[in-house]
Amino acid sequence: MHDYHFFTSKENISDSIATIQDNEFRHCCRVLRHKEGDKIEIFDGTGNLYHTEILKIGKNEASCKILNIDKAGVSKNLKIHLAVGLVKSKALDLIIDQACSLGMLAFYPVETEHSIKKSFNLERYEKKALESIKQSGNLFLPKIFDVMSFDDWLNQAKNISTKLICYQHSTFFLNKIDFSEANELAVFIGPEGGFSQEEIKIAESEGFQTVNLFDGRLRTELAVTTALAGIHTIQRR
Amino acid sequence: MHDYHFFTSKENISDSIATIQDNEFRHCCRVLRHKEGDKIEIFDGTGNLYHTEILKIGKNEASCKILNIDKAGVSKNLKIHLAVGLVKSKALDLIIDQACSLGMLAFYPVETEHSIKKSFNLERYEKKALESIKQSGNLFLPKIFDVMSFDDWLNQAKNISTKLICYQHSTFFLNKIDFSEANELAVFIGPEGGFSQEEIKIAESEGFQTVNLFDGRLRTELAVTTALAGIHTIQRR
Repeated sequence: MHDYHFFTSKENISDSIATIQDNEFRHCCRVLRHKEGDKIEIFDGTGNLYHTEILKIGKNEASCKILNIDKAGVSKNLKIHLAVGLVKSKALDLIIDQACSLGMLAFYPVETEHSIKKSFNLERYEKKALESIKQSGNLFLPKIFDVMSFDDWLNQAKNISTKLICYQHSTFFLNKIDFSEANELAVFIGPEGGFSQEEIKIAESEGFQTVNLFDGRLRTELAVTTALAGIHTIQRR
Repeated sequence: MHDYHFFTSKENISDSIATIQDNEFRHCCRVLRHKEGDKIEIFDGTGNLYHTEILKIGKNEASCKILNIDKAGVSKNLKIHLAVGLVKSKALDLIIDQACSLGMLAFYPVETEHSIKKSFNLERYEKKALESIKQSGNLFLPKIFDVMSFDDWLNQAKNISTKLICYQHSTFFLNKIDFSEANELAVFIGPEGGFSQEEIKIAESEGFQTVNLFDGRLRTELAVTTALAGIHTIQRR
């Protein structure tokens, strides 16, 4: 049987009590029919897992006594700022799902020259992100940003120490990056059709290193997964 | 505009003529309306790309004069025998698609203890494999096997020098494998619910090394992509 963790935001955690509300409350107490006295696990999206006992079930929330707390380790993937050129919803669904399972700090959908789609349903992808981390058991909820321009993303990334832009024609392989130096890491992946030459030039002038993920074409969604899986694999000790 | 390569099997290639037939013929001459005298690219699934000129368009085939041939380099991924515990069609679709784009030598769907699904539509997945490599520009067509038992797979893998079985509780990380030694590589990934303890034991006794891909749960399809992307990343020079 699947282990459910219920999500609550950090504000709903006090020293000894964790409260779950709304969708998470309904899933716990209506769908799964948990009762007062049942033991459930709650997480706050920042790496904490609370082992609790349900004290009181109200109309739209349940308060739970915290029995003890597990803290998850932080993998380097959790320091990744992932920016992706806007692509179609179906591709974005897979990107958010797989990237949340593999871990990232934040996601930035970026309007690029070759992006055909221009809209991004923030609320939908915030929900997707929560579903994905619950399903995968990842205890860190990435922050999902709303769509932004190319320039706004470069500005957001200004203070990130290591910045990569994935480019098929780069001769610099992903496995040559020295991650021991990288504190936070920006990874920028193009839409279908890739980045324009001009975009690569601008990003380089802003301190992005071009990086070659694969010796062939990859669709955007597979490039995202390949980058995150590759980074995870090479930085393990 | 997308560069199309048309597939034909090696038997349809002579010294100077390549012939395309059936679906590929229809796509080329009916859908894309190529005419005699047009230049088209044909591949045979074994790494050869033929630059040709259409000589003659018949009712169900076109014969094309071979002008010159490019041979693709072989990445280590192309020596991977990928075996996966049978999962649902939707997950299998993604697995075949992503694994074909990242490269593998052959795919083996295996009935394992925790596999719920028992059937595998070989013809459907052969088509998917061809679509995927055409889309990704990979010139190597993996062989797709029909569903087989756990024992039959172990038997198939007998002569493969390096054999990995992915297991969440293994303490051996993927990046510790010495690929310079590996000639061909078997990678075995479990279905939803993973392998049973008994299956892990049997595989180990048959020379499989357990390997840990990720410090969390991964769904089967994401485990496949993570393994292939991870192997691709660490073996590049």
